[in-house]
This record gives sequence, structure tokens and C-alpha cells, in this order.
Amino acid sequence: MASTSSLSLSNSLLARSASHHAPASHSSDHRPGLCLSAASPLPTFSGLKSASSSPVQIPFAPLRRRLLQRQIRAAAIETLAPAETSLVDNSVNTIRFLAVDAVENANSGHPGLPMGCAPMGHVLYDEFLKFNPKNPYWFNRDRFVLSAGHGCMLQYALLHLAGYDSCKLEDLKSFRQWGSKTPGHPENFETPGVEVTTGPLGQGIANAVGLALAEKHLAARFNKPDCEIVDHYTYCILGDGCQMEGVAHEACSLAGHWGLGKLIALYDDNHISIDGDTEIAFTEDVSKRFEALGWHVIWVKNGNNGYDEIRAAIKEAKSVKDKPTMIKITTTIGYGSPNKSNSYAVHGSALGAKEVDATRKFLGWPHEPFHVPDDVKKHWSRHIPEGASLESEWNEKFAAYEQKYKEEADVLKSIITGELPAGWEKALPTYAPDSPGDATRVLSQQNINNLADVLPAFVGGSADLASSNLSLMKKFGNFQKNTPEERNIRFGVREHGMGAICNGIARHCPGMIPYCATFFVFTDYMRAAIRISALSQSRVIYVMTHDSIGLGEDGPTHQPIEHLASFRAMPNVLMLRPADGNETSGAYRVAVLNKKRPSVLALSRQKVPLIAGTSIEGVEKGGYIVSDNSSDNKPDVILMGTGTELELAVEAAHELRKEGKAVRVVSLVSWELFGEQSAEYKESVLPEDVTARVSIEAASTFGWERMVGSKGKAIGIDSFGASAPAPVLYKELGITAQAVIAAAKELC
Amino acid sequence: MASTSSLSLSNSLLARSASHHAPASHSSDHRPGLCLSAASPLPTFSGLKSASSSPVQIPFAPLRRRLLQRQIRAAAIETLAPAETSLVDNSVNTIRFLAVDAVENANSGHPGLPMGCAPMGHVLYDEFLKFNPKNPYWFNRDRFVLSAGHGCMLQYALLHLAGYDSCKLEDLKSFRQWGSKTPGHPENFETPGVEVTTGPLGQGIANAVGLALAEKHLAARFNKPDCEIVDHYTYCILGDGCQMEGVAHEACSLAGHWGLGKLIALYDDNHISIDGDTEIAFTEDVSKRFEALGWHVIWVKNGNNGYDEIRAAIKEAKSVKDKPTMIKITTTIGYGSPNKSNSYAVHGSALGAKEVDATRKFLGWPHEPFHVPDDVKKHWSRHIPEGASLESEWNEKFAAYEQKYKEEADVLKSIITGELPAGWEKALPTYAPDSPGDATRVLSQQNINNLADVLPAFVGGSADLASSNLSLMKKFGNFQKNTPEERNIRFGVREHGMGAICNGIARHCPGMIPYCATFFVFTDYMRAAIRISALSQSRVIYVMTHDSIGLGEDGPTHQPIEHLASFRAMPNVLMLRPADGNETSGAYRVAVLNKKRPSVLALSRQKVPLIAGTSIEGVEKGGYIVSDNSSDNKPDVILMGTGTELELAVEAAHELRKEGKAVRVVSLVSWELFGEQSAEYKESVLPEDVTARVSIEAASTFGWERMVGSKGKAIGIDSFGASAPAPVLYKELGITAQAVIAAAKELC
Repeated sequence: MASTSSLSLSNSLLARSASHHAPASHSSDHRPGLCLSAASPLPTFSGLKSASSSPVQIPFAPLRRRLLQRQIRAAAIETLAPAETSLVDNSVNTIRFLAVDAVENANSGHPGLPMGCAPMGHVLYDEFLKFNPKNPYWFNRDRFVLSAGHGCMLQYALLHLAGYDSCKLEDLKSFRQWGSKTPGHPENFETPGVEVTTGPLGQGIANAVGLALAEKHLAARFNKPDCEIVDHYTYCILGDGCQMEGVAHEACSLAGHWGLGKLIALYDDNHISIDGDTEIAFTEDVSKRFEALGWHVIWVKNGNNGYDEIRAAIKEAKSVKDKPTMIKITTTIGYGSPNKSNSYAVHGSALGAKEVDATRKFLGWPHEPFHVPDDVKKHWSRHIPEGASLESEWNEKFAAYEQKYKEEADVLKSIITGELPAGWEKALPTYAPDSPGDATRVLSQQNINNLADVLPAFVGGSADLASSNLSLMKKFGNFQKNTPEERNIRFGVREHGMGAICNGIARHCPGMIPYCATFFVFTDYMRAAIRISALSQSRVIYVMTHDSIGLGEDGPTHQPIEHLASFRAMPNVLMLRPADGNETSGAYRVAVLNKKRPSVLALSRQKVPLIAGTSIEGVEKGGYIVSDNSSDNKPDVILMGTGTELELAVEAAHELRKEGKAVRVVSLVSWELFGEQSAEYKESVLPEDVTARVSIEAASTFGWERMVGSKGKAIGIDSFGASAPAPVLYKELGITAQAVIAAAKELC
Repeated sequence: MASTSSLSLSNSLLARSASHHAPASHSSDHRPGLCLSAASPLPTFSGLKSASSSPVQIPFAPLRRRLLQRQIRAAAIETLAPAETSLVDNSVNTIRFLAVDAVENANSGHPGLPMGCAPMGHVLYDEFLKFNPKNPYWFNRDRFVLSAGHGCMLQYALLHLAGYDSCKLEDLKSFRQWGSKTPGHPENFETPGVEVTTGPLGQGIANAVGLALAEKHLAARFNKPDCEIVDHYTYCILGDGCQMEGVAHEACSLAGHWGLGKLIALYDDNHISIDGDTEIAFTEDVSKRFEALGWHVIWVKNGNNGYDEIRAAIKEAKSVKDKPTMIKITTTIGYGSPNKSNSYAVHGSALGAKEVDATRKFLGWPHEPFHVPDDVKKHWSRHIPEGASLESEWNEKFAAYEQKYKEEADVLKSIITGELPAGWEKALPTYAPDSPGDATRVLSQQNINNLADVLPAFVGGSADLASSNLSLMKKFGNFQKNTPEERNIRFGVREHGMGAICNGIARHCPGMIPYCATFFVFTDYMRAAIRISALSQSRVIYVMTHDSIGLGEDGPTHQPIEHLASFRAMPNVLMLRPADGNETSGAYRVAVLNKKRPSVLALSRQKVPLIAGTSIEGVEKGGYIVSDNSSDNKPDVILMGTGTELELAVEAAHELRKEGKAVRVVSLVSWELFGEQSAEYKESVLPEDVTARVSIEAASTFGWERMVGSKGKAIGIDSFGASAPAPVLYKELGITAQAVIAAAKELC
């Protein structure tokens, strides 16, 4: 299990510049957004490792000069001279051909998007995006998401030009190969500089909404009138495919509702998707729709080389503070390919040698593959020192902030690093054996509220089921457009958007701990987002109540059956189904500590008693003995259960013991954690020689053979449920202690 | 397995009135929309069972008189006298209190929506909807979908008043109880009169899009200038919750694109969802959004008692032929409850005795629970004869149609009844052992195109991956606004909407056979729709290609791992993973024959050889012996595989046999079908005594213990995949014949 100290990649490399001091001459410079104080030591964050192995040399320059340089740069952007336009052309064509060549080299990939989006990519990365290539995890960087993830060579080319170590020339040459840092779609866990994992369409823009939400929230909590310590934009490139996906729509509706002014989406409007012209399936008025969603909308008609228009649009977008902006940028997919541009042929296949030649001719690009002209190299090379300066500048700002606002700085630091507050676990409620029982959703609510006190960036909410999921943090208000400092998020009935937004929140920085809630059965709506949590190693806590037929009258549309099995089969997810108060606390402990995987908590609508023998420590092992009257690790029979059915196993054991049987009861709250224990431990819980095993779970029996073995018996439900009061359903569907007893007697 | 003749509920009870003849006097009446001819026998459809046990008595009346009556009724709608308004008030309050009383009686349910939507419900069912209460499956009925399924008591109350046998008073009194016909959310398989299964929000409106698509398609194919034999509307009530769901947005975008003019959505705009006022999460301009999607939009400001406005809006909606219409109807949730209306308190809980009393007082309703006043009863009672007349009239129309257009009538009849054409299976391609192999997606394409020739209402398409899924029917064009007679559906990148629309198509009538396609991994986007296919017993064929790491370079975002297991765990789904040409044909055979469950076909991107020993018949058994050199049902080892890995099992067997082993190779193409075989058959394939078993599948091993037993070995992938060429991935992830050989040698 991941512990605090094993956190491998931190969000901040502040420690690297800990010895730099802000120059004294600026100590009185307290205008908004620039807080500096004399001789304040920059924070040294303990436990952080550098993303690169050697410390970065940050060229020292007086702050005033750097500011001046930035002003010049900003001015230059607006008045780009013709010579510079030709440089931009060169840079844009470099991006196009790095993509074309890498796809050609791999004989696999998507050249069309990078060729069409190179102009917006260049303008955004070179002229607007705030980043430090040598520290991709610098906290205050602008976030960029390529929602149209198949066009990842665009991003790899940009990261290459910008000087990121993850995308050196050899990485581009090993595009889509085993072990490379440049996989077929952007993966945050493979490629520093990539914020989130995209490819499944629509996810990225929803992640971007989450990133922008996190920024708005932290800015509201930590910025001061004299110091904007949290201050970045979130940019996203999305295509027609993303625009069609419901998850994107859900998230964009929320972004408009929340007024995420620092979210800027660049919509690659190229009218082509895999099946051909978007005319065949996508004729809605996207701009009007986004206006209806409360977005500011701009249209750049010439995305192929209208650099000035793109620039002006991004500038305008940045100036709109109360709404997210969608810039519709009309482009030609595969721009430059004389025979394949503007067709689906250029979307997802290598151009082929002949067409590559034709494209080289068309764009006047006589160079060999993977060539980066010197002027382009030189132009982009400034991003390394400039990025270092940006970070260093911010570090100075942070030092000043810390001196004035010690308490806030400490909290913000813990959010930036993800270091959990010492003793946070003490907030988890524990229950004495004589405590009254309750529904695990109620016990979950206690955990959520206790954790809200100790985890500074624990934020979350429900997809319009807060009163059923019991997911509100009572001491906080709602995160809304005008109250972004609050921590309860109201997602509306948008499960998929909720999950994807939480992925974005989780990926903003290591200390953001998002949770989200709905009925367990509706994980079906958000499964694609949960899978991205798992794949992208994002700690999202899924609070899933009403976890079985125990929800009763709502009936089979609302009763999960196959869901436990379906998450047990999904890699890198912790599926936890706690049985009572102690196990619920254990589930939250595990969920918080596992920083590199999501947890799905299945929680009951109905009451359960507190079960003697359950424990937080037990949950951490995934499976453990709750009660036992056998000796020498040789019970006559092992009864197993999870969640609300553990009680039935206990009840059956009680009866069987009365008849003289040696019965062990095992709670299997998390199969993944149990699977990770030592062979010895597993043998101590489920000895191989004991084949008389009975499991009970109000869900599909699929997979239970792993636990009960070939000779055991799994009691469960392999059909859909029904609409009736819960006790009737349990009886009618055979989920009873009597069934356990009968099965046990057949086996021993 | 379901066979043609076991089709239990037909879409048409035409046979019941087969002895009626149209009066001769109308034989020359051939104006558009009314085709009649003398003495044409009405069709007698064989193999049909009646939904009710006794034949309906249709009161005979000359057609002219009936037409006159209808004209009078239509006129009456527009000039409702005050007395009649009070009758409507009474009817509306009856609906409100049937809902209130049933929820109170069950102490569970959702009174708020029925109380607010009773006016639109009354106007729609009583004045517009075309139905025959004694034959809920009459083909040409208007379809009604309650997308906000939690408000099901609205629909049950309406079905009750309208005279449906499924919602008698005792059914309303057993609302939400075990075995009742009135479950907690509408379920088509429990309650005749309910078209689709709703509750999970957003699904219903997408189903309605599918129903309207089916109507538009069939009308375009079968209507004649002198006879509109297919001619009905599709109505849907949806709420704020549905409006927030991405699946609804996807489907509505398509409905606008397709110009589904006979789709009319009534949006219950009550500003309340479970978490409170929609202000907290849903502030977009819904009307403007729907305009952007190409819908006609009308706003009824007084939905609580503005009967005339509601009427006028529906009338206007019906007159708009080229666009679907959304009528936003502003209502008060829980209208009539003095203390709980307009709040979430009335959404999902019984009012409680005190508030019920207060509501009775407020609405002037002195009656006992479940009371239906006589004037209301009398008023609604006309729907039984009128419905019978409607059907009878249509039957006459059909008889005339049949006489003039024999060929079309025969085809339409087979679509209405769902009877498969004799010998259709011959269209399935078969492959000799020396046939060249190919990717199963290519073989699937052959099946799709062959089936398109013999199944008259086989329609479908892909979520923008037609060229990868190979899902196009080559001889047909695209279903579009102006070419609705075509059969290829272009869903755009909208997997969830696609699945839910296909559910609607499948539920339109038994002969509609929809299929839909995307990459297997993206079943995650549409899982909620697939589950509804399964629960609602709807034959949708899910053509899911790129079914493993075998897709290669696109990487882990695109590589399914847990998906086979997750569908094997889902009730009433056939999960099929064919290994080659014969198995692919077998999979299609099974998918078409199983009229009451969906099939998910997992198909490969990469080529596979034709394997000696595979067969269509084998697929029908789910698991079968492909090759064997053992005797007496005692192989030394059993090797099992599915899909593209069966080849590896065969290769391993070949090597092991060289070393003298008795090796059986088993294909486990569908676990569900294998599970349904007799114990004897299963023992003949997987004898209990043979514990040396090895399975290989390029997917999660979760669940394989069921097949390999406690002592066997499952070879699979329990982590995410990676981006690299497929052969590299197979090797690196250990999915090889060598691994099978090594495991087998350890076991025998």
C-alpha cells in the first residue's frame, strides 16, 4: 500500500530553489498579484523527489528585468513582424512534420489532427501557456489537456520543442512502441508534461473542467487581495468527436453553471470524423449550444494559418473572467496533404511515403524526417530559462505569501505536495462492539464529515442524490460560481461528467482528494471515467450507496447485481464493500492512503448491526477472520461474506456452532487487497485443505469460485432483482442465513 | 434458446379481427392516408398469441360513422366547454390521488411528478394518444415513454383510467410489492402498456428517439401515396434529471439531425430535483439548447392547469413535420400539497397521512383512497371501444394495403410479428477447413451483409467507427432526414445514445433487429443502455470490435481487459467471443434467435486462421470440443480458449500431443449458453475428474476459476495493456502457446 513517503512524483519542485531569496529591493512591492517580502526563505518541502534527477539551474535575474522581458514578450505577441510570421510558419510546419514522420515511422497513428491543429498548438504553447519544461509538475503551471487524444503527436511535438525531457527526439522516434514514453494516446503516467489520460473521447474536456474547478477553488481559498498565489488557466483542445459525447456535454453544462472563467476550450472544428463529413451525424449548432450553456463563444474562421486571429481569440478568452470560453477554430484536417487533407483518410492512418513526399512539396518542407530547423530550435529554446524563471518567480511569491500568511501557506503546501496531515487517521470513527448499527451509507457520512475536518482539499459531492448518498459535508457550503471556496460539489444528474471531473480534480495536484457519489448501479453511467481513474492512477473515491437488492422497492433498474464482479475484474481499482462501522472507516482509510488508485465503496441503504470482530486493520488486509471456533487452522467450514451479508454468515455460524461445528467467518471486504497479501497470510485465512466453503453476497456469484473453490458453494443472485420491500426480496431470492446453513451442512 | 415459435407476446393482435371485412361501400375511397378495398380478408398471422386471454369484442359500426365520431371528438378537444373543464379537473385530480394513495399505501415511491404532470398526462392520454387498451401491442399505436420513470404512478394511473388490464385497481394497490404488475419504475416486461423500461434517467428519451426512428423508417419503406399504413407519434415525458444526462443529449442531438418530426417530448420543467432547486446545478438555457439541436421548441407556462395551452402545444407539435418538438411545460412538483409542493420533499417519499389530508383539502378531494369518481370513469370508458375501433379501422386499412401491395404487406407483417423468414439461417456464411482466415470483424461484416439480405428490418450502425468496426451494409445507404428508408444508421461518436436508441428500435416491434457497433472497450460508455437491453429483454446486437490488446498501438485506453468478465457477470446478456469464421456465423445465429436478450459480440481487429473443429452448432452450445485425442472422456489436460486465443490453445495442444499427451481443446465462446446445457453435456466437455485445465484469454482472468477449477491455471492479463504492436504485446504480456504448454506440463 502506498504510504505518504512513497509518493514518487510531487506536484512541486519548490525545494530545488529553496536557497534563493527574493531581492530586498522588492520588499514593498505589494500590488495585487505580486506579493514579495524581504529575505523570506523559500519553503523547503520535505519528502519531495525531483522529477528530473539533477537540480535545475535557474539563471538568476533581478525580478524587475524578468518582468520587463515578459512585458516585451507580451507586446511582441501582438505585433508579430513578417519575419516572425515566417518563423511561426516554420515552427508550425515542424510540428506538422514531427507528427507526420512519427506516424510514418510507427506506421500507425493519427496525423490528421496534428497537421490541422499545429497553428493553434504553436500559438498556445509558444505564446500563452505558462509552464516550466524542466519541472512538468510545477504547481502554478497552466494546465493543457488534449481531449482529442488520438492527436497526441501534436502534444508530443510541442513538448519536444518546449524542451521537456519526456519527449526527446528518440522518444518521438519510438512513438507507439513497447516501453516508450510516447504511447498511442496521451497517458499522464507515462509522459511528464501530459496532465491527464485521454483518448476515449469527451473525457479530456471533462477533466479540464475538473482542473479548472480545482484552480478556482484553491484560488478562492488561498489568494489574498495582495497576492494571487494560485493563478493559472486551463486550456483544452477538443474535436468534433468530443463535442458529440454526452460526458463532454455534461461537464460543459457544469462549467457554464460554475462560471469557470479560466477554462478555455479550443474546438478543432474540422468537419471530419472517422465516418466522414460530420454532416452525416452532427449538424447541431455547437456555438449556439455553448451559449445556451453559459459559455463565451468565439469563432476563428481560419485556423490553418490565421495566427493573429487565434492569438486575438485566446486573448479575448483570457479577458472574459466570469464564463468559460469556447473558441471554435475552423481547420482543415491533415492540412498540407494535397490528396488526403479534409478527408477521413488522414484521420487515423499513416499518410504513406508517396503522400508524405507530396505534403513536403506542398508545404515547402525539403527536410529529412524528424528535422527541426535551427531557427525553430532557437526560438523555442527560450522556454527552458523562461519556465525556470516563471517557477522561480512564483517561488519567491510563495515565500512572501508564507511570511504573511503562515497558516494558509502551510495548508496550501500540504495540498501541493499531497502530504497527509500527521494523525489524520484519528479522525476515522471507530465503534465499540456494543455500538448500535446503522446503514453503511450513514457510517460513510460520518467518515466524510470527519475527514472534511482533517483533509484540507477533500472535496466532492453527488450526482443529485446527496440526501440519499448522505454525501454532504455539513460544515461547508456549495461550490458555486460565487462561492468557489466551498467544498460540496453539486454535480446534478450527470454521473459520467462527475467521474471525469473528479479525475481532473485528482490530477490537479496530489493533495486534492475528490469523492463523488451516486447509487452503485449508476456506476454503469460513469464506468468509462472510473476506468480512467484506474488507468491514470488517480485517487478518486467513489461513494456508491444503495449497493444491492437491499434498496428494495425501486426495483431492478436500481439494484446492482453484476457491479461488484465488474469492478473486481477492473485493474487497479479497489472495490470495497464494508460490512459495518469499523469496516466503513477502514474503507475510507484505505481509500485515502491509496494515492495511485481509485476506490469504489459499495454502501448499504439498509441498517446493519455492528459485527464483533470487524476492524480497520482487517480491511487493510482485504480479507480476514471475523470469528472462529476452530483450532489448528482446520475449521469444518468457512463462511464468507461481504457488506450487508456478512451478518448472515455470522448468524449462520452461530447456529452451526450450536450444532458443534468448527466454523470460521471471513469478511472479504476487498478482494484486491486480499490478493496482495502474502501466501502465508492467505493460507491462514483460507487454508487450501479446507474445501468446505460457503459464500454469501446479494450479487452475482460470478468470480466467487476464486474464493469458495471447486467444491464450495456461492450463494448470490444471478438474475435481475425486483421491486418489493428489501426483506421480502432477501427471502424470495434466497439470500438468507438458512441458505448458508443448508449449504454448509451439505459440505461438512 | 428462444425459437421463432416461442415468441410469447406479439406486437399485433390482428388475428383477432381476421373475420371482419371492410364494408363494400368504401371500396373506392382511396384518398391519401385511407386505403380501403372491398372484401379483402384481414391478415391472419400465424404463431401469434393474444396478450389477453379472451378475444376482444369489437363493436361493429360502419366506418363512416366512426370517422364522424372521431371528427366530433377532435372538434370537442378544441372547444371544451366549462363543464368539461371541471371534468378534466376531476380527472386530473383522480390521477394525482391515485398516485398519492398508491405511494402512501406502499410507503414508498415518488408522488411529486404525477401530481405535477397529471394535467399533461390527462391531456395526452385522453385527447391525443392513439391506443387500444385491450391490445397494448397493436402495431400502429402511438408510443408513450415516461423517461422520468420514477413518476411511474402517473403512467399506471393513466393506464388504469384508460382501461388497460395491467393496471386494475388491485394492481395500483399492490404498487411496488413482490409479484405485482406495478413495479417501482416502469418495466415493459411486467406491465403491458409500458413500452420501455425506464428509471435510470435519460434512457427513456433516447428510447423514444429509437421508437420514432423506427416509425419514420418503416413509414418511409411501407407507406404509399394512397395509404399511410405506418403512422404514429412517439411521445415522451422527461424531467430536469433526464435533461441533465449526457445520454439524453446525445440522442436529442441525433433526433434533431434526423428531423424526427413525429417525436414530441414534454419536458416537465419543475425546477426541482432530489438535491433541491435546479438552480444549484442546472442553469443552462434548455430551450435555446434544443433550438441549437434542431428542435422545434414551445413553452407552456402554466402546466398546472393550463389545459388549453397544453392542448394547443401538442397540436402545434403535431403540425411540425420536419423537426422533433420539445414542449417545455412549467409545472409545480407535488402540485396540490400545501406544505411539500415545489420542494424536493415531495419528490421521492410518501407525503404522510397528515399532508395527504392537507392535500385533499387543498384540492377539494373528499374521497377515500383510490377513488375514481363516476364521471371520470364514464369519461374514460370510451377508450375501450374507441381503441378497438382504431385498431379495427387500421386492420381494414391493412387489408386494403395487402390487396394492393402484397409483397410489401408480407414483409411488413413479418416485421410486425417478428417471424423470421424461412431459411434465413442459410444466409450465414460457413467456412471449409481450408478457407483462409481473417479478422473476426471482417467475418462479422460478411454476416451483417448477408443478414441484411434476409432480415427485412435489420438496421444499425456504428458510433463513428464504421470503417473500423466494418459495420456498414453495403447495399444500403444512410438513414437520414431525407432518406429514412435506408438502413445504415450513423450515430456519430455517441455510444450511450446509440445503445439507448437501439433499445427503442428493438422495442418498436418484434421484427426490428437493431445492431450497433463500436470498439469493445467503449461498452463502458454505453453500459447503462446494455443493461437496459438485458433487463427489458430486448434483442440488440452489440458488434464490438478491437476486443483485446490485439488492437495494438492505440494502447491501454483502447484495450479491453475486464470487459468480457463484466458482461459474463451481467444477467440476461449473451457474451460471445467467436474464434473464427464458423464461430462468428454461429454468434450471429444465436444473436438473431435470442429474441429476449441482447448479444455482445467481441470481435478481433487482427487476423485469425480458420480452426479445424469449430462450428455454428458448437457456438449454440456455448462451449464445445474443438479437438481431442483422448479416449473415455479422460484427457490428460483440457486446454480452453476463446476468440483469438483459441488458436494458441490449438497450437499448444499440437505440441503437447507430439509429446504423447492426450489433450482436449475446448472453445468457450459463450459461458451463458454453456451454463444452460445439461449436466451430462457439460460433463462430456469438462469432466469433473479432469482437474488439469489451462485457459488462455487475452483479458482478465477474473471468473475463469469457474472453468479451470481450483487446480487449473488461467492465463490472462490482470493489468492494463500498453501501446505497442500487437505481436509484441502478446509476447510481453505472456499470452502465448508456450505459456499454455508450460502450464499444462505443470499440471499433467
